[in-house]
Amino acid sequence: MKFSTEKFGGNETQRNETLFTLGNGNLGFRGDTEEKAGTFHKGTYINGFYESESILYGESAYGYAKNHETIVNLPDPKRIELTLDSIPFNLEDTGKIKKYLLTLDTQKGSLERITEWNGGSRSIFLRSERLVSFPHEDTAAIRYSVTNTSSKDVQVGLKSFIDVEAKNILAKDDPRIGAKFRHEVLQVRQENPQAFFARTVNSSLSLAGTCSHKFFLGNQSLDFDGEKNFCLKSGETFVLEKYISYVWQKDGDALSLKQMSSDSCKKALELGFDRLLDEQKNFLAEFWKVALVQIEGDRASEEALEFNLFHLLQSASRNGRASIAAKGLSSEGYEGHFFWDSESYACPLFTYTFPLVAKSLLEYRARILPKALERASVMNLKGALFPWRTISGEETSAYFPAGTAQYHIDADIIFALNKYLNAHEDDLGFEKKDVEELCAQTARMWLSLGHFSKSKDGAFCIEDVTGPDEYTAIVNNNAFTNLMARENLEIAIKRSGDKASEEEKNEWKLAAKKMYIPYDDETGIIPQDDSFMDKADWDFKNTPKENYPLLLHYHPLVIYRHRVLKQPDLVLAQFVLGGRFTLAEKIRNFNFYEKYTTGDSSLSHCIMSIMASVCGEREKALEYFNKTARMDIDDVNGNSRDGIHTACMAGSWMSVVYGFAGFSDYGGKFSFNPQIPSSWKKLKFSLALKGSILDVTLTHDAAEYSLRKESAGLSLRHRNVEFTLGAGEKKTFGLAPKLKALLFDLDGVITNTAELHYRAWKEMADREGLIFNQEINKRLLGISREASLAVILEANKVVWCKEKREKACYEKNERYKELISSLGKDDILPGIENLLKEAYDQGIMCALASSSKNAPAIIKVLGLEKYFECSLSKPLDFSAGIKAKPQPDIFLNAAESAGVWYTDCLGIEDARSGVCAIKSAGIKACGLKSSGDDVSAADIIFDSTKDLSLEKLKKLFG
Amino acid sequence: MKFSTEKFGGNETQRNETLFTLGNGNLGFRGDTEEKAGTFHKGTYINGFYESESILYGESAYGYAKNHETIVNLPDPKRIELTLDSIPFNLEDTGKIKKYLLTLDTQKGSLERITEWNGGSRSIFLRSERLVSFPHEDTAAIRYSVTNTSSKDVQVGLKSFIDVEAKNILAKDDPRIGAKFRHEVLQVRQENPQAFFARTVNSSLSLAGTCSHKFFLGNQSLDFDGEKNFCLKSGETFVLEKYISYVWQKDGDALSLKQMSSDSCKKALELGFDRLLDEQKNFLAEFWKVALVQIEGDRASEEALEFNLFHLLQSASRNGRASIAAKGLSSEGYEGHFFWDSESYACPLFTYTFPLVAKSLLEYRARILPKALERASVMNLKGALFPWRTISGEETSAYFPAGTAQYHIDADIIFALNKYLNAHEDDLGFEKKDVEELCAQTARMWLSLGHFSKSKDGAFCIEDVTGPDEYTAIVNNNAFTNLMARENLEIAIKRSGDKASEEEKNEWKLAAKKMYIPYDDETGIIPQDDSFMDKADWDFKNTPKENYPLLLHYHPLVIYRHRVLKQPDLVLAQFVLGGRFTLAEKIRNFNFYEKYTTGDSSLSHCIMSIMASVCGEREKALEYFNKTARMDIDDVNGNSRDGIHTACMAGSWMSVVYGFAGFSDYGGKFSFNPQIPSSWKKLKFSLALKGSILDVTLTHDAAEYSLRKESAGLSLRHRNVEFTLGAGEKKTFGLAPKLKALLFDLDGVITNTAELHYRAWKEMADREGLIFNQEINKRLLGISREASLAVILEANKVVWCKEKREKACYEKNERYKELISSLGKDDILPGIENLLKEAYDQGIMCALASSSKNAPAIIKVLGLEKYFECSLSKPLDFSAGIKAKPQPDIFLNAAESAGVWYTDCLGIEDARSGVCAIKSAGIKACGLKSSGDDVSAADIIFDSTKDLSLEKLKKLFG
Repeated sequence: MKFSTEKFGGNETQRNETLFTLGNGNLGFRGDTEEKAGTFHKGTYINGFYESESILYGESAYGYAKNHETIVNLPDPKRIELTLDSIPFNLEDTGKIKKYLLTLDTQKGSLERITEWNGGSRSIFLRSERLVSFPHEDTAAIRYSVTNTSSKDVQVGLKSFIDVEAKNILAKDDPRIGAKFRHEVLQVRQENPQAFFARTVNSSLSLAGTCSHKFFLGNQSLDFDGEKNFCLKSGETFVLEKYISYVWQKDGDALSLKQMSSDSCKKALELGFDRLLDEQKNFLAEFWKVALVQIEGDRASEEALEFNLFHLLQSASRNGRASIAAKGLSSEGYEGHFFWDSESYACPLFTYTFPLVAKSLLEYRARILPKALERASVMNLKGALFPWRTISGEETSAYFPAGTAQYHIDADIIFALNKYLNAHEDDLGFEKKDVEELCAQTARMWLSLGHFSKSKDGAFCIEDVTGPDEYTAIVNNNAFTNLMARENLEIAIKRSGDKASEEEKNEWKLAAKKMYIPYDDETGIIPQDDSFMDKADWDFKNTPKENYPLLLHYHPLVIYRHRVLKQPDLVLAQFVLGGRFTLAEKIRNFNFYEKYTTGDSSLSHCIMSIMASVCGEREKALEYFNKTARMDIDDVNGNSRDGIHTACMAGSWMSVVYGFAGFSDYGGKFSFNPQIPSSWKKLKFSLALKGSILDVTLTHDAAEYSLRKESAGLSLRHRNVEFTLGAGEKKTFGLAPKLKALLFDLDGVITNTAELHYRAWKEMADREGLIFNQEINKRLLGISREASLAVILEANKVVWCKEKREKACYEKNERYKELISSLGKDDILPGIENLLKEAYDQGIMCALASSSKNAPAIIKVLGLEKYFECSLSKPLDFSAGIKAKPQPDIFLNAAESAGVWYTDCLGIEDARSGVCAIKSAGIKACGLKSSGDDVSAADIIFDSTKDLSLEKLKKLFG
Repeated sequence: MKFSTEKFGGNETQRNETLFTLGNGNLGFRGDTEEKAGTFHKGTYINGFYESESILYGESAYGYAKNHETIVNLPDPKRIELTLDSIPFNLEDTGKIKKYLLTLDTQKGSLERITEWNGGSRSIFLRSERLVSFPHEDTAAIRYSVTNTSSKDVQVGLKSFIDVEAKNILAKDDPRIGAKFRHEVLQVRQENPQAFFARTVNSSLSLAGTCSHKFFLGNQSLDFDGEKNFCLKSGETFVLEKYISYVWQKDGDALSLKQMSSDSCKKALELGFDRLLDEQKNFLAEFWKVALVQIEGDRASEEALEFNLFHLLQSASRNGRASIAAKGLSSEGYEGHFFWDSESYACPLFTYTFPLVAKSLLEYRARILPKALERASVMNLKGALFPWRTISGEETSAYFPAGTAQYHIDADIIFALNKYLNAHEDDLGFEKKDVEELCAQTARMWLSLGHFSKSKDGAFCIEDVTGPDEYTAIVNNNAFTNLMARENLEIAIKRSGDKASEEEKNEWKLAAKKMYIPYDDETGIIPQDDSFMDKADWDFKNTPKENYPLLLHYHPLVIYRHRVLKQPDLVLAQFVLGGRFTLAEKIRNFNFYEKYTTGDSSLSHCIMSIMASVCGEREKALEYFNKTARMDIDDVNGNSRDGIHTACMAGSWMSVVYGFAGFSDYGGKFSFNPQIPSSWKKLKFSLALKGSILDVTLTHDAAEYSLRKESAGLSLRHRNVEFTLGAGEKKTFGLAPKLKALLFDLDGVITNTAELHYRAWKEMADREGLIFNQEINKRLLGISREASLAVILEANKVVWCKEKREKACYEKNERYKELISSLGKDDILPGIENLLKEAYDQGIMCALASSSKNAPAIIKVLGLEKYFECSLSKPLDFSAGIKAKPQPDIFLNAAESAGVWYTDCLGIEDARSGVCAIKSAGIKACGLKSSGDDVSAADIIFDSTKDLSLEKLKKLFG
């Protein structure tokens, strides 16, 4: 794709410099122009090349991170200055610019700038092409050609050099932009304008830079030593080719480094610009072969994804010496640090599109393991504690409550490693000893961090930690952290080989087994941490728009003590550990946390998008996706000038693949549950998996899975159907919903037990001298026995002790069961038996969706066993955390017992809470008005059961 | 008292400079010598005179404190240099110093240094006297006299000047020492060596300093303009008197300030040194009139207290412009900041000894209220939030988790204010509008900080706060904070006048009433915060001595996640809110928290001492007291050179008055429960109270309370006896314990219900098919029904649900009650009825100390009602949080029901847990071996009841 703009100047220039960045994972050039004038911030970076400086604390304490580390803005090798009849060619002189076109080509891997300049009687056409070579990590090149388009000859002044005056941006108070140095960072020795040697003062990194040139005037090749004045005749063109090589080392010596740089530059010169371009194209072709995502019907998103993936490739180190910075190689925001983003956002993407990058990112962690071991020791922990933010491997987070306290980074790394190994173990080897060591040392960390808590029945608890959502800090049992720690331990048990004894592994097993996961029994919510449910809600209503992101407008203590999220911690856990949770649990938690999530972090929306997809809310998923996918390309947050948002970019791919395509890989089992947005026509993408390349093509009607010829074969699952594919094979599944199961509420739908309930309650109430009437009875529709009693007691303004309540429920139920036994065929509501028969005949399953523990007994008394066999053989397991309506659990469970995918089901209900439950489950709802309750949210509504028509219900499925 | 030393040099000098500091609450001089050589750090300070500088944060965020504030080391006005025949008089030249004597006189308020110097054939006797005037806050004076003690004349060179080169100490990483400035702090203009004008760069405070001299050679008065060379004949003496005045203002103009300084200096000169000394003595006489504490039998403690009180007086501002710094005016530690120490440690002392100082400290808070209002607003709170540490009133804490998060400072201030008003309301007026405003604005803060929590049944909860114990941070419902917040609200309801509407006060009432106080039902402990009981214990066993204080050797996160305390939060709350808790609760919590308290803070030991006293552990109290009282005088922590520990000093007075004398003032009710350490003979101290001066004299045998003639009259309480004193009246109470009540366990002491219990349990066990035998039965001695069943189930390795357990307990008890009704006179154990009769006849009360709910019924069946009337009329209230033996509750409750002070009681027990309960309550114990349980901890032991002898029991009371 070609991404281009004709705009420049002011904010446009600032943003463009970021968006048109070129990089190869090692070396990065911001998209600033060769000329100095009219640029915002000229940036040249090497991934992992940083300077450190002691952190000044207002108040320091033991074990605080010692040093800042900041990516260094290097001498600028792109610099070319041009004068035309002694007038500087100058983009600031906007009146003279007749045309301006900047184009980033993601297939060619190059940046082209075309400028038509008209200085009165003189005019030129300037074309500058630039590449940062993917195959040669030290190398970049520029081709700068100018044609005299005027009728007069022009005297040209041309200078090309390396500008050693480049400096880092002076950051202000926003921690997302960067920090300023208090000292001169680089000691530079420049022997001539085309070469330099530099060393950082504190981190002792050495860098040698060289550039060489080729120069052509017309067809003539001429010498160029950095400066030339010549006459460019009317219609004539000159071309300056500039070859650049930047080589760095820790403690490298000047002589050899300079030699390496000069050799490398010479090699580039010999290859020439066109050859470098060809190599670039070939490299990218290899990348796009798998990485390309095609979206018919949404060109903007398709373009955004290609843009994002290209920038990610440009940002990610492939040499194991670095990782992927929060802002890639496009600027100095977040100081060029590597966070958990690398493993949690970028790794999944590269694992399935360009595994060698994922491997390199993980190798970087293996490389800094010694420092993680040291850090753990400072923190009084065993094993390894990886730094929250770093370049060199040292912890550099100056605010430990949102830094070092994020121990989850250990688990994030191991989880990403495991994902990679699950996807490629047999194909792309990772050093086994590194895997084992990483697994063992992180597991050790968890064991020493947590403890078996007496006050929580011996559960393994982890206290005083911070989860990914930094809007709470230093909390106990952050659910994300504990869930991921358990994962880490379980992976370590499997993958640490003989780096840990059986005894140690048994300890890990015990901790994993006893891992404490907060749970709120009343709501079925997994609280973000131990005290999350205690917090006061954030006052969203009185928070003006301009006060977002909250972290820039409220003191941390204000944010911490309220229920408000920057990014959704637990929702993220339910995404990455998808296989650990039921769909109902995901829906419940997603709906709960969405209310409190500000999305103040750019890492938030993509996760919300994925989980909206998972929960069947694809239009909401698309909304979140749009905020994610075009974050930089549209400069949504107005801060793209400070650098791209790499995690957000990776998140856009995840939103498509894990979200819309419903890809799931938890535990090394690969499945899909696709549901593309209604505005999309087709989605096509590919995954590299166990030596195969899988192409997935999704429309609204069908999902097609095919393996390329060179593949090895794969076992997959589409929704609840398992299948295998051999090389070159293809398998297609229909996606159009089809009525395959009816899910029946019991009371008021199959039979009218409501009257029996009423009688049983009434008798109890009379005995106890409580008021009970139809008014109160109405409020009991569809709620549990315990909840019903609570309603009755509340209506009577009476408080009973638990024992008395239990006794009353028990007695009411005993009486109810007696009443049930008096039911018979005649009590089946009109029309129901017909409907069941018809469905039975057409092979449509029927299942019970009732929270009543007496449901199976009633079905038997009514003589309807035949139709509800699936429900009777698999009765509801109430101990499994199933929540009553309006929660979706009971309907999703019914669909599962029927063995039918829930989107092919239809639920029938006469109660409002029941209809809510069906809709919340993403199932089509049929409402009956007969109970008098409001069922207007249903997709189809009948007055009573006798009006039910299978034909009409089937029509709902188009 | 005279506090003196003959040691100097090295550490001695460093320490002495602190310990021999002179100050008047406004101006402070470290005890360094006039000569430069041989000093460690020359310090001159003005309370409240500071410079500010922006805080550099590693990572900043919204609402962070903006500036450091640091007390400034001012130009040194003491400087005098002396040469003798051109040889500098030099303390570093130790060979020449024949005698050195430094004396601080706490009655005279002066410092004297005597030095005998022998430089070969020359020798001199140097006497330097110094005072910082209490009546004249700007004024200090030095009298420097030298006698030629050699046989030869000596040529003297004498210089006296103000040294403007003084600088603050360069602090290292220890936050307790101070911080360094990054800029030149003072802009000084010195027109001549005897005068200067200076202004701080950022805080814009102005200071003018002047000194003047008188000079005498022999009897001759001579002019002295700062420098003189003259011949001192053999035997002759010269005297140099130096008068100093330092005047400061915010934004003061140079001319008028210089004039004020010079005028003030002239006045001092006119008064002369002797007159200044006289005034000083008179001022101090007024102070010591009430403040003096006399301890017969422990001169070291008596001396330490006088030393401490003197330093506190020297440190505390009396002009309302400042408060009392953590290190007083003795050094720059903690940057000269004012903390909660002022209100929580110094205020109580001054309230009762020298109220005008307490008033001034509180007026300072009223003065900075506008800044507290601003700070609350930044923190998104209503009302006023006082700064955790400050000089100017701005928050300057650079680490908010242990700074701003300590909201409790608001309540500490109001609590101290209320204490002051309770003690003096009618006598020493505090501006009423200030009181009302302070009360209303702090109450508002609490209302907006906390919320009524749904998850805690609508209780008022306060989240994300830090209590005084900084070894946890950002916790929920810190008990100290919530308890003090409740106090703050209740005081505000009473004292905010019309500054708050009735509606607002009703809100405060509701919040106070519903204030959430954590409580652990199982143990009866008040946890320090919501998650305190969940934490893992600190590994004290493997913590080497040199790793204390922990904060210098472990990362905060390591400390935070363990159960370990720097200072005892909850114990402190139970001290200051004494009237809110029963003695049993205090004992329980003291014993629990003592295990986890490191005392790493110098504010810790005094609180532990007080509560050890309260809990009847006076030898332990003395141990803690000794660590507190002599903290500086003995340089216990080795850091006195960095300044005195003012809070600790105030704590030593509190340990004596609130601890050993058992003074209690909660709620404006004044009582004593004295118990002096066994090694002390007599303790005498006085309190200023409601216009009276109360003298308290305590020996082991008696407590004497007397009012001075000029008093107004007082209502007091000694233990449980109320009394009033008129002017000049005296009242004496005997303290020697006397047997006044016998507290009887029931089972095995009065009758053998153990057999009945056994039968009832056995029947239950047989029914349920459980094993139950005498072996198991033994373990049930003295424990509750529920606990007994738990023992039986555990022995059978059986788990029952709650309902089943309750049923079993119920049935067992029903059966037991049946069995009881079969008891009669014959079942009274031998000897008991005699003992009861004898006691009855001698007027010794008898009370039941049994957790058995059936106890009253048994007593009736046995026909012993007459003896146990007090217990039968006031049965145990189990809903009041009374805990079973071995907790002390039941015995303390029995003593109370008998109306006898617990130290005059004796408990009789046959079970180990019962004896523990008695001892834990601080009651004398009689043990019976008859049950076979270990009762060896009892004070007297009999084989069985028939051996009981009232005479022997009475002998225990000497």
